[in-house]
Amino acid sequence: MTEESLHSRAGIGIDFGGTTVKIGLIAAGRILEKRPPLPTQTFSSANALIDAMLQEVEALRALHPTTPAEAIGVGLPGLVDREHGIIHGLTNVPGWDEVPLRDILRKRSGLRTELENDAKAMTYAEWKHGAAKGRKNVICVTLGTGVGGGLVLDGRLYRGAQGGAGEIGQMGIKANGKPGNYGNKGALEKYVGNRQIVDRARELYAAAGRQLDGEVTPLTLEQAAKAGDAVAIALWEEIGTHVGFQLANLVWLLNPDAIVIGGGVAKAGDLIFEPVRREIANRCSAVLVEHLAIVPATLGSDAGLIGAAQLGLDAC
Amino acid sequence: MTEESLHSRAGIGIDFGGTTVKIGLIAAGRILEKRPPLPTQTFSSANALIDAMLQEVEALRALHPTTPAEAIGVGLPGLVDREHGIIHGLTNVPGWDEVPLRDILRKRSGLRTELENDAKAMTYAEWKHGAAKGRKNVICVTLGTGVGGGLVLDGRLYRGAQGGAGEIGQMGIKANGKPGNYGNKGALEKYVGNRQIVDRARELYAAAGRQLDGEVTPLTLEQAAKAGDAVAIALWEEIGTHVGFQLANLVWLLNPDAIVIGGGVAKAGDLIFEPVRREIANRCSAVLVEHLAIVPATLGSDAGLIGAAQLGLDAC
Repeated sequence: MTEESLHSRAGIGIDFGGTTVKIGLIAAGRILEKRPPLPTQTFSSANALIDAMLQEVEALRALHPTTPAEAIGVGLPGLVDREHGIIHGLTNVPGWDEVPLRDILRKRSGLRTELENDAKAMTYAEWKHGAAKGRKNVICVTLGTGVGGGLVLDGRLYRGAQGGAGEIGQMGIKANGKPGNYGNKGALEKYVGNRQIVDRARELYAAAGRQLDGEVTPLTLEQAAKAGDAVAIALWEEIGTHVGFQLANLVWLLNPDAIVIGGGVAKAGDLIFEPVRREIANRCSAVLVEHLAIVPATLGSDAGLIGAAQLGLDAC
Repeated sequence: MTEESLHSRAGIGIDFGGTTVKIGLIAAGRILEKRPPLPTQTFSSANALIDAMLQEVEALRALHPTTPAEAIGVGLPGLVDREHGIIHGLTNVPGWDEVPLRDILRKRSGLRTELENDAKAMTYAEWKHGAAKGRKNVICVTLGTGVGGGLVLDGRLYRGAQGGAGEIGQMGIKANGKPGNYGNKGALEKYVGNRQIVDRARELYAAAGRQLDGEVTPLTLEQAAKAGDAVAIALWEEIGTHVGFQLANLVWLLNPDAIVIGGGVAKAGDLIFEPVRREIANRCSAVLVEHLAIVPATLGSDAGLIGAAQLGLDAC
């Protein structure tokens, strides 16, 4: 444990995913200890999973008696009613409709508890402790199976009227494009999500008269591009151009000082970042671009955990 | 003068347009007196126009000795450096590069003075005194020769890193569409600006084997649609669909509680509002739409004047 964390307030972060629930003790943006993740889908009910979460919370407190946690923050994949502390259903996790999770955790742990959407928790972490530290107006986009996002505007996490803001993946890049998961035709996510990247790769390789053998993932396609495969290079160029077009639009709207790109697909690095930077430079006025940082996320898969804990501590 | 305005703080608004400069005394969101507008392009220099503006400011103060103006607010068509009170050039008005307008007006009038971009001043007025009064997260879009916009987020006017936020008209609706004025291909403005509406009308009428006689403006096209002309109806449907597509994207991003549509083109009323509302309803999750007001601006061409004065008074 560092000097810094000894003197920082500690909080417990819970990153609630469709596959696992991660729980850890965090101080000064660092993970002091992470518990073994809980496999989300193996619990028979919301109550059973809540019991297991609270056991891990108590385990963390017992293991760190000299670093008392002051709060719990939970990041969740869905729309969260922060005011009432209620979850209106979770993406890919049944049994969580209208669960008053905040008050259950508060009452049983005795700790102040806050709920937040997971993409907003990640954004908060990257702003407080990661790639966008010290910036005032930040767009954060995560490229993975889905495309999520979050906004920090005028130095505050922006949530919108119902807490639903930041859905960059649902914003359309073509008015009459592919139907999005939530109604919007041409939704960016339907062009640059993991599955769509693989589907598009198959199309491009087929058009080039080549067959893709074995497992195909964004990672194998990234490796192919880095090895010089022209089809894979063209694929990433296309993906990055789609992302860059929509981010350029957001630069016109929000005039941010930082854009943070995270998620698995962002690991493709320059394959994504070069077309993104080029599109933004070509499509936006110089005054909007010259001080704009376009950077990779730095907290990786821990961002949700760190951001949730920090939001619990800050309660803002 | 009303009781309300007697007890409200008064400010002088200056709405600096490419054609005229409007100057008025405002209290409680109402215009107590407007001076005859100054014809912008007839002045030989920035200094000559500043002299004339200050004369009108002094005339207003002399005419209303019992309603002393506490501040001046200026709305300007361009990027404003609020921190330093400097204009970095105005759209369609030469001779205004790097003019320290704020300090000149402050020094010569003795009144606190604030500068703001004109679309943001309009947005502020509609939020403080008009269609979005009492709302917390507002998107304001003005449809005219150009397409401008402004944002109120978390109950504050949002400006962005360089004061350039809100440029909804420069956001693209087609990645490879028509070149925008400031570099973005497919910029919304290039599909729904006044001139583009007239050009598109000529195309649609020609395709229908008909000729458009006499002056053609958005107003004559509105009248034609309201009289049942099928081509004009289809035109407005198309215009409204373009606007609705981009606004639906902004609903996903910002989860606003109000969208205010103003400017000359918005006077077409349901011809615009029906497709806009339909696109937003079809493209967005119900939770984002059910409490969302999509309303016409109410302050009309005075919004810029009122908003500028209010911003001067509020200095926020």
